[in-house]
Amino acid sequence: MKKSLLQKARALYQPKLPKGLQGAIKVKEGDPTQSVGDQDEIKKLFPNTYGMPLIEFVPGDKSADSAVNVGVILSGGQAPGGHNVICGIFDAVKKMNPANKVYGFLMGPGGLVDHNYIELTSEFVDDYRNTGGFDMIGSGRTKLEEVGQFEKGIEILRELDIKAVVIIGGDDSNTNACVLAEYYAAKNYGVQVIGCPKTIDGDLKNDQIETSFGFDTATKVYAELIGNIERDANSARKYWHFIKLMGRSASHIALECALQTQPNICIVSEEVEAKDMTLNQIVEQIASAVAQRAEDGNNFGVVLIPEGLIEFIPAIGRLIDELNDLLAAHGSDYKDLDKDAQRAYILAHLSKENAETFATLPEDVARQLSLDRDPHGNVQVSLIETEKLLSDMVAAKLAEWKKEGKYVGHFAAQHHFFGYEGRCAAPSNFDADYCYALGVSAANLIANGKTGYMAIVKNLSAPTDEWKAGGVPITMMMNMERRNGEMKPVIRKALVELDGAPFKKFCQCREEWSRETCFVYPGPIQYWGPAEVCDRDTRTLSLENAAKNK
Amino acid sequence: MKKSLLQKARALYQPKLPKGLQGAIKVKEGDPTQSVGDQDEIKKLFPNTYGMPLIEFVPGDKSADSAVNVGVILSGGQAPGGHNVICGIFDAVKKMNPANKVYGFLMGPGGLVDHNYIELTSEFVDDYRNTGGFDMIGSGRTKLEEVGQFEKGIEILRELDIKAVVIIGGDDSNTNACVLAEYYAAKNYGVQVIGCPKTIDGDLKNDQIETSFGFDTATKVYAELIGNIERDANSARKYWHFIKLMGRSASHIALECALQTQPNICIVSEEVEAKDMTLNQIVEQIASAVAQRAEDGNNFGVVLIPEGLIEFIPAIGRLIDELNDLLAAHGSDYKDLDKDAQRAYILAHLSKENAETFATLPEDVARQLSLDRDPHGNVQVSLIETEKLLSDMVAAKLAEWKKEGKYVGHFAAQHHFFGYEGRCAAPSNFDADYCYALGVSAANLIANGKTGYMAIVKNLSAPTDEWKAGGVPITMMMNMERRNGEMKPVIRKALVELDGAPFKKFCQCREEWSRETCFVYPGPIQYWGPAEVCDRDTRTLSLENAAKNK
Repeated sequence: MKKSLLQKARALYQPKLPKGLQGAIKVKEGDPTQSVGDQDEIKKLFPNTYGMPLIEFVPGDKSADSAVNVGVILSGGQAPGGHNVICGIFDAVKKMNPANKVYGFLMGPGGLVDHNYIELTSEFVDDYRNTGGFDMIGSGRTKLEEVGQFEKGIEILRELDIKAVVIIGGDDSNTNACVLAEYYAAKNYGVQVIGCPKTIDGDLKNDQIETSFGFDTATKVYAELIGNIERDANSARKYWHFIKLMGRSASHIALECALQTQPNICIVSEEVEAKDMTLNQIVEQIASAVAQRAEDGNNFGVVLIPEGLIEFIPAIGRLIDELNDLLAAHGSDYKDLDKDAQRAYILAHLSKENAETFATLPEDVARQLSLDRDPHGNVQVSLIETEKLLSDMVAAKLAEWKKEGKYVGHFAAQHHFFGYEGRCAAPSNFDADYCYALGVSAANLIANGKTGYMAIVKNLSAPTDEWKAGGVPITMMMNMERRNGEMKPVIRKALVELDGAPFKKFCQCREEWSRETCFVYPGPIQYWGPAEVCDRDTRTLSLENAAKNK
Repeated sequence: MKKSLLQKARALYQPKLPKGLQGAIKVKEGDPTQSVGDQDEIKKLFPNTYGMPLIEFVPGDKSADSAVNVGVILSGGQAPGGHNVICGIFDAVKKMNPANKVYGFLMGPGGLVDHNYIELTSEFVDDYRNTGGFDMIGSGRTKLEEVGQFEKGIEILRELDIKAVVIIGGDDSNTNACVLAEYYAAKNYGVQVIGCPKTIDGDLKNDQIETSFGFDTATKVYAELIGNIERDANSARKYWHFIKLMGRSASHIALECALQTQPNICIVSEEVEAKDMTLNQIVEQIASAVAQRAEDGNNFGVVLIPEGLIEFIPAIGRLIDELNDLLAAHGSDYKDLDKDAQRAYILAHLSKENAETFATLPEDVARQLSLDRDPHGNVQVSLIETEKLLSDMVAAKLAEWKKEGKYVGHFAAQHHFFGYEGRCAAPSNFDADYCYALGVSAANLIANGKTGYMAIVKNLSAPTDEWKAGGVPITMMMNMERRNGEMKPVIRKALVELDGAPFKKFCQCREEWSRETCFVYPGPIQYWGPAEVCDRDTRTLSLENAAKNK
């Protein structure tokens, strides 16, 4: 494998660890815990893994020397730092006992079920230290939900004498990790299951998890690009750039990038939903800002749009829900109709309110909503080019206003969508350290016989030394929610809170940012150089932690 | 102006200078020069600025102390480092005599004609050291070509007592700088004009200019993103990413990015043209690579496509030429026809060969070619989504092959276009140093009474100390070419040379890169840290210089 010069130099970086994980480790247990909601149901579903205490690792006298083989699994979409979690697990497990083995299950949870794995060696692991991507062992989206899968899993775990599995994934993967932990505990199979909080969307976050890994790096890459585009906009002074950003189920990425780069406009899906805004209201909001800046002679600007916006617009959300049901029920006869007949079919079968919404949509968006369900039967929202949709509608609105004499200016737009550009970036110092510490924590949860826990590290706005590592019972973060028509135990998704510190900060500034040119250019992630540049945390994290500590 | 932490730290960077520019400077003059072609015509057009010697600055005994006010102009598209050219001019001119003044003409050459300017102060300049963008004084695309403009210019130059103007721009802007120099010399106006070689496309390059500024930074930003996407492709293993890259008139950017990141495929427009390839042949080449990798179970990959590809396909080039003429001749009656009538009109009026090519194009591309000329009457090639066009056609080809049993695999594509992401990035150390040295060179050409020169810095693959700064008569790089139907003196555009070292290196590797996964992940530009990471030059430059020195 040929490596870039940066990769070679970066391979030598030794991630910093919190004090509690640096030497011998003692376990500090808290009081028994409760789930955040629906305690009775969750307790009934997880009799063996409910109510366990919070755990913190503090400096101790005696090093762990457990004999234990460990399996690791990467689950779901890539996030910067995943390799460092594995490196942390590997180093900690080998330190306990060099005879311990670490196995990687290949291409996600499916690797456990299908018995695809490799043993990780020191030489192999070294190639992936501080690198981005999940290519070390691959990832996948197979969901571990069925007893049959669990039983297939135990076969290979027994064969390899694996005593613990670490599943690195998002909210669903961690929920499933807990279901698996509970199953193996109930069956007395003697296999522990530990989760790790990954998602660059930032929606796996709560009282115990300050941030999920990857969010820091990905938002810094996106902010680098947005800053570069802002500088271009401010130099050429002739384009409005509409930039769509990853984040289907929450707008944390867009909000974080806005706080870093101070664009003219940032739409926050959660606000759109809370205020029951229509598509037309969003368009008017943007067009008004364009018109205002045009009055000052500034026919340029930058607009940030979260990927999931369309689904958060309540009227469109209701339409999509009905469409999903309609197409699921009538899928195959509908499929053979031609374009116009499909449109007519849909308009005829929708409720009055939703038919009206459908009729007002631009043709290609209406078409996109009528087609191409993903394997779970959902609209593939990422295929809707929201950034073009909005700029087209803004252009139309401005043309209208121009006729009415309400707008004098020139509007031309450029479009961007940033997702893949950041998911596999090499982790920032923050994510490199955070992930490595998560891995070492996971290994120590294992050494202490824990199962159904997620590894956590807190106090992340302080210097690394002062971070607090430990574990949280996954059941503690659960409540019951309806999914595909069934009530299920799930970890509650963290959306942008409209009374949270990051959004409040944004609200204080956005009027000025909208009219003036207040762009900030963060530049690329730096690995060497002044600490305030290399080790800065996200604005979201530092604002949230500052509010907590007030 | 609020600055990012990186900007603040980076503002302290002091660009490194070649030995010849560090202290007192002596001028070393070479022999008289000739233009690269059409010597008689060029000499006749530039009687006062033809045949001057090459100039090199070497360490001397006596510091220049010229009393001279200088005006600077940024011309054309943004390129990283432009601000540092201005900083270099400013520092050198002030060092000669603190009473000297530097003026910036605003929003490009138009600022000179319209008398829009600011005086640059030390405090103002400091805000822009080592930053990207052209927002310091703005840029524009007004062409300085008319005597009326030159005369309007001299009014303000006299008013401000400006003795020299530096025009920072691409090939056309430097040609016009020379025309202006010649005009002011012929009129004995006592104003010198100096050019500086800017263009991130890399097409302003010849025996005297090793690279134009901005190419280094921009290609490193694009390579960072391509590397991240490659890592994603290699982790998820389910997408082919089609990435279009800036570079309309040459493929230097795509080739450089390929050498840095080793993608599966990189199309080079110049090769397509030289081999008279059709669109269908390009599609088959890509589809074959996809099919080959699918045989190995690798249903993923990365394809790089230069922005200008479409125009380089000879059959399409011929079609576009005829369409340009056709639409220019029949523009207004044609404009009022509806879509289908326009198509019919075009097919009826084209020559047989071009009508056939037109008929085979996908509908939306055909439509794009029939519409939306830019102000110069040319097809707006950047509006053609070549990356989608190619992937759609590859998908269709693979579907055909699947039916014939020649392909078994799964093909899904993602699309990207990188241009604005890199044009205003903060300059790499290389571009920061190179641009600053260009500025100091320009100031010293002025101090030595030169006009019609371009500032240059050579030997750029060596450490900065050993770079050689000086000037080249702009006429030396000229020949006569047909532009808009007229023969004009122009600086010859540098295309990718198929017998040049960078392309030959690519040819040696591309078979392996196509079948295997040889991705390299360059990571973000670093400003601090190991020199081999922070100060590396482009592969293009180092391969070309190595070949020269063989």
